[in-house]
Amino acid sequence: MSAYAAKGKAFERDMRYVPDRITREDGRSQDPHVGTLDVPTWPVEPGRYRLVAARACPWANRAIIVRTLLGLENVVSLGLAGPTHDQRSWRFDLDPGGVDPVLRYERLEQAYLARDPSYDRGVTVPAMVDVPTRSLVTNDFPAITHDLFFEWRDHHRPDAPDLWPDECREEMDEVMEKVFTEVNNGVYRCGFARTQEAYGAAYDRLWSAMDWLEERLTDRRYLMGDRITEADVRLFTTLARFDAVYHGHFKCNRNKLSEMPVLWAYARDLFQTPGFGETIDFDQIKQHYYVVHEDINPTGIVPKGPDESGWHAPHGRERLGSPQARRSA
Amino acid sequence: MSAYAAKGKAFERDMRYVPDRITREDGRSQDPHVGTLDVPTWPVEPGRYRLVAARACPWANRAIIVRTLLGLENVVSLGLAGPTHDQRSWRFDLDPGGVDPVLRYERLEQAYLARDPSYDRGVTVPAMVDVPTRSLVTNDFPAITHDLFFEWRDHHRPDAPDLWPDECREEMDEVMEKVFTEVNNGVYRCGFARTQEAYGAAYDRLWSAMDWLEERLTDRRYLMGDRITEADVRLFTTLARFDAVYHGHFKCNRNKLSEMPVLWAYARDLFQTPGFGETIDFDQIKQHYYVVHEDINPTGIVPKGPDESGWHAPHGRERLGSPQARRSA
Repeated sequence: MSAYAAKGKAFERDMRYVPDRITREDGRSQDPHVGTLDVPTWPVEPGRYRLVAARACPWANRAIIVRTLLGLENVVSLGLAGPTHDQRSWRFDLDPGGVDPVLRYERLEQAYLARDPSYDRGVTVPAMVDVPTRSLVTNDFPAITHDLFFEWRDHHRPDAPDLWPDECREEMDEVMEKVFTEVNNGVYRCGFARTQEAYGAAYDRLWSAMDWLEERLTDRRYLMGDRITEADVRLFTTLARFDAVYHGHFKCNRNKLSEMPVLWAYARDLFQTPGFGETIDFDQIKQHYYVVHEDINPTGIVPKGPDESGWHAPHGRERLGSPQARRSA
Repeated sequence: MSAYAAKGKAFERDMRYVPDRITREDGRSQDPHVGTLDVPTWPVEPGRYRLVAARACPWANRAIIVRTLLGLENVVSLGLAGPTHDQRSWRFDLDPGGVDPVLRYERLEQAYLARDPSYDRGVTVPAMVDVPTRSLVTNDFPAITHDLFFEWRDHHRPDAPDLWPDECREEMDEVMEKVFTEVNNGVYRCGFARTQEAYGAAYDRLWSAMDWLEERLTDRRYLMGDRITEADVRLFTTLARFDAVYHGHFKCNRNKLSEMPVLWAYARDLFQTPGFGETIDFDQIKQHYYVVHEDINPTGIVPKGPDESGWHAPHGRERLGSPQARRSA
């Protein structure tokens, strides 16, 4: 995902995504809390779709993690764009010849234009692309991970975690909403503020939420209790980038994540869980933010720090509950 | 002090200062390691000179601290410029009417031009100004603190610390040289680098010196042993700005100062010593760097963090030696 703030305005994320869904039943979600869908739907079909992500991007990172946790690696293929992009598009510059080997595109924009030649909104990751037509299906990031869970169940690994446990669904939706508005998007609200006032308000809002999380996770191993859920995946991808990027580049600097004992141990716990830490590439993450945001970092210099070795330190949270994610990588 | 790097070049500080000295004897230093001076000298004379500093500036901060440690408050008056300045000059915008009450100037540049109407180099603080002629005497910052000690001895408080102990002078000169090139100036070398290579080299050099300091101060309370010296003053003013500015703004971010147990306790020990901590104004410090360096921070947004309350925490370094600075503020 990529977005910028208008000069002198507080940051507001453009949430107009291509809303198609990939579903088991035509026009209908398997999520009992959703039911009928009023957007175009595409059929679940192993091998048909390619998830295009980028290791740099927190929104795409969610989909990479969920695909692995659910064991969908051989069902939905994965294409990875490089860490930086130009004003219009992510690029496949990490692939041999700079071309995605399945889609045969150099730029993700090509899949968007194959879908709609007049497409002029953001060319974002994650994107689900229909391989036969090489055209975009959807870039609606919360729906992508939601549907990997609810619609692709027949193809999950046998011991796949229940990322959306029904018994706490209502509370989980509330927690995820708060994590999204206050933290996932909250760090961008700090970094993309263009007035001191907007920044100050964004900073206070973010840290209020960080303190709430520190408190909530004191006696819960994970956000919803003793099992990993989608809510943890969504929080993790922001926490993983916190000290590397948001602390300095976005001025979210009341303290480092590593200075919050509970939240830092929680983040390390997830990082050390198969499916999470191996999706994190700190170099790509730093390259992305520090190079792409020329308006914040015009020199383009990418910091060498911080020292990331602490991510591998023992977290001591086993006593709070047992992990539910896959046990072997 | 203020300085910028040429585009695409590593940062090199312009060290061409107005080199006059204020001395007890005409043409001669009282420092036995110096002797005859080949620059113009002005006489020591209580009440005649005004030290112009700025709380924001680390180089000026040295002179504010030394003046207090030596008890020269009623002998050399102090003028304070505001935290930000334009391309040419520091300004007295904190004073009533924006005018220094003694020099009756709005801009420090006026004192420089009174000295030399064609002056076209940096208008820097600290600056010693001759009050009767309202013109600059010197802006040579290492000489200013050196001479406050050696030349104004007749006017020091009775229990003034020996900031330049002769018994370790040779080693102290080496330590101060290393602290200057690697740390005081090292953070600027990181922040003003304009290529990734120059930045990377500067970062490695800085952290090599920081590790050396961490080691050196493990069993020494102060840099030269159990007494505060000029070397500590010079290191302190950089450490005080480290987490507030250099960590994020200058990308000196391997870790925060507060993550280095020895150096952080050492910095807090000095901060809590009368004459040091009360000279630090974190708001002015942040205002200065984040507003003045438009090429690094074009948005001009000043971070709210970091939380500075840790500066007041116990440091536990009393066991390493007894402080020698003045005992009451």
